[in-house]
Order: sequence, then structure tokens, then C-alpha cells
Amino acid sequence: MTARQELAREVQVLAFDIFGTVVDWHGSIAREMRTLAPQVDADAFALAWRAGYRPAMARVASGELGWTRIDDLHRMILDELLPQFGLAHLGPAQRQHLNRAWHRLDPWPDSVLGLTRLKNRSTLCTLSNGNIGLLTNMAKRAGLPWDCILSAEVFRAYKPDPATYLGVASVFDLQPSQVMLVAAHHDDLAAARACGLRTAYVERPDEFGPARPKDVSPQPGNDLHCRSLLDLADQLGAS
Amino acid sequence: MTARQELAREVQVLAFDIFGTVVDWHGSIAREMRTLAPQVDADAFALAWRAGYRPAMARVASGELGWTRIDDLHRMILDELLPQFGLAHLGPAQRQHLNRAWHRLDPWPDSVLGLTRLKNRSTLCTLSNGNIGLLTNMAKRAGLPWDCILSAEVFRAYKPDPATYLGVASVFDLQPSQVMLVAAHHDDLAAARACGLRTAYVERPDEFGPARPKDVSPQPGNDLHCRSLLDLADQLGAS
Repeated sequence: MTARQELAREVQVLAFDIFGTVVDWHGSIAREMRTLAPQVDADAFALAWRAGYRPAMARVASGELGWTRIDDLHRMILDELLPQFGLAHLGPAQRQHLNRAWHRLDPWPDSVLGLTRLKNRSTLCTLSNGNIGLLTNMAKRAGLPWDCILSAEVFRAYKPDPATYLGVASVFDLQPSQVMLVAAHHDDLAAARACGLRTAYVERPDEFGPARPKDVSPQPGNDLHCRSLLDLADQLGAS
Repeated sequence: MTARQELAREVQVLAFDIFGTVVDWHGSIAREMRTLAPQVDADAFALAWRAGYRPAMARVASGELGWTRIDDLHRMILDELLPQFGLAHLGPAQRQHLNRAWHRLDPWPDSVLGLTRLKNRSTLCTLSNGNIGLLTNMAKRAGLPWDCILSAEVFRAYKPDPATYLGVASVFDLQPSQVMLVAAHHDDLAAARACGLRTAYVERPDEFGPARPKDVSPQPGNDLHCRSLLDLADQLGAS
């Protein structure tokens, strides 16, 4: 048996990062902004909204904020950003609708078919800092065939807290090495690896928009390096 | 608009009790026992195992036991029961396999088609005291098309704790009246109703086996009374 076959045999659960890995947050947020306010630089707006995400989570992780869902963090960031983009006049209902754009992110073109194939061989779950309702609404709209929605909200900790990666193994009563994290971000994968999970990197060169191609060259340490979720299905021998 | 149409319009999320409502625990546990040990009274064994469930949860709710998953409660009950059924000789691997029978419960004949129809109009989630891994494995085996697995494990409280019913509304950022609990047990439905949820009773006369038919006559208070999940789909106008 090759090392690849052994890996495929051992891994029972595939846990997926979502924003950037399975769905295109940049293109989807920019699309919504172009519809709402054509005069705004939609590319810059999408980047700025996403840039507020890590600092906001850090305020929760440090204890400065109590446990807060991503929906509420997105809204705090949005309320700060709107005046900078000339949109201070948006009312509560418009802000609420815009904030829900994160529930309406489009999948990358290979995501639905890749997941559908992988579902034949593995249990598929999300492992995202996004909240359960957001991930469920997104999946229903986009047709993402999860077996189970897991989220920071379940574990009351954000990635890269070990409680999230080890939480997936615990939920399914598995060893960490029987769980593989699939993500387009090396820091997420490194944190999972430190907990004993297997890891697969997915190339998403357009995560920050086609004008800003991301370096997707292989880095050491990951068990698999994939061009897409279809490539991951091929590498794991999913039919 | 009729009251029924208004109800159907308001309800966004259907939350399902599982054991007895969506799957046939009695028939499935008895089936497994007949295969494992034909000399055992499989009907009595299934009833005895299930009868240990509420007292075990009560030990957690009272604080006598720390937070414990149903998988572990099932195993504690099983270890107590086996000697009474002449099965004290079963080893750890056999006990573990038998305990997993709760992950292999069969759906009632109408469950998969009923849920598939209901999924076209509503978000479908579980709301069970079963743990997330159990519910996910069960759904994958039985083909239950949940949008989201919610469990006592997510809320760290067992039904009928209000934290579970209100937790569903909170996860989806809805009013309690926009969530409907679907269950075959009037006490579960009454607790949900006290939290402001809508309720639908489902007749499962064979929950305790065909030899022990359950009274399934309508009781006041529920918004809907259904013969099956197909009947629920009809009543909610699901295509």
C-alpha cells in the first residue's frame, strides 16, 4: 500500500475551512456592493471588510469582548467602514441585509462537485469561525452537501485555538490523525497539524481578487497539496 | 389567508426530535440484538436500554454527573443491563459495537421522503439529546437530509431545558415563533411551546413496538397534528 493509499484509508472525516477555501468571499462581497452602490470601489470595500475580521476575533480571544458570533463582528466592522466609503446614510435594514452578504457567498466553481464526490468516501463537516446559522444558510443557498456544520460557535473558541481542531476529532470519537483539515491558508493548516490532524492545502490564487494573485506554491508539512476540491477528490480516490 | 397558511408562512426552521420521531429505536435495537444473540428477548432488551435514558440524563441535569454525551450514557446503561440479559461475557469491542447501534437506527418509512419534501420550504435541523457524532453518522447511513445538526451537545443542556429550544431560534437569529418543533412526544412539545416555539405532533403508534401500541390521539395545544412526516409536508404545503 502506498503512503497515499494509507492516508486515504486512515482519514474518516474531512473538515473544511470555508471563507476563501470553499467560497469566494472577495468576489461575492464585491458583487453585492456593486449592486448596492455602483460608485463605491467594491474591490477595496471587500478587502477592508475582511481585513477587520482577524482584529475583531482577537478582541474576543483576548477577553476584551465576550463570546461574539461572526455575524455580530461583521456588523461591528461594517458600521465602522461605511462612513469611509461614503455610505454612512444606510439605515438598519440595509445594513442588516448587507451584513447577511456573508450568508450569500458563492462557492468556487469546483466546490459543489468536489464535495459531492468526497461525500461518497468521507464524513464532510465545516470547521469555520463563521457561526452555525451563517454556515447553514450559505450551504442551503449554494448547495454545499455537508454532513454536519461545525463552527467556532460549537466549541466557543475561534481557530487557531486547539479546542476547535481537537473538537472535531472528539465529536466523531476519532484520533486527530483520522481527521483532515482542508484549507487555503497555511497558518490554519499548521495549527491543525500541531494538534495531530492531517492537512490538505487547496490553491485559491484569486482569494483576494484576480488583480491580487496569491502565492499558492507548495509548502512543506501538508499531507496533500491540491489545485481544487476535484483534485482533492482524485488524490483521495473518491469516485 | 387561513391560519394554516399564516403558520406555514411564519415558520422558517423545522427542528426535529429524533429517537422515536424520525427513527425507530425500538425496532432497530431489537433487530441488532436478534442478530447478536438470538436467545435474548430483543423486545425487552430494547425497552430496558431506552428506559435507562431519562434517569441517566437526570443525573447529568442534577449535577451528579458532569456533562456527558448520550454515547457515554448509553454505554453506562448497557454495562449495567448486559448481566441481566445473560450477556456479561461480551468484551469491550463487542460492547462498543453494540453501543453504536444507536448510530444505526432505521428511519420510519415516511421519514426520508417527508424530510426531502420539507427541505424545499424550510431549514431542517435536528434537536435531539443525541450527540452530534451519533446524529451525523445516523443521517449519513439513513439518508436523512438535514441542513444542520443541532444537539444537546451544542447547547450543553438536555431537552426539556429551555436553552435547547431557545438555542435553535438564537442560532438562526429568529423569533421562537418562527421555529417549529416536530416530535412524537407531548412533553417535549409542551416544553417547546412554553418557550414560544410552534409545535407539530407526529403519530408514531409503534414507537415501543407493535405489541405495545402508543396512544396517539390529538392533545390540545399543538399547532399541527400529523399522521407522518408526509402528512406534515402536506399540511405545510411542501411540494
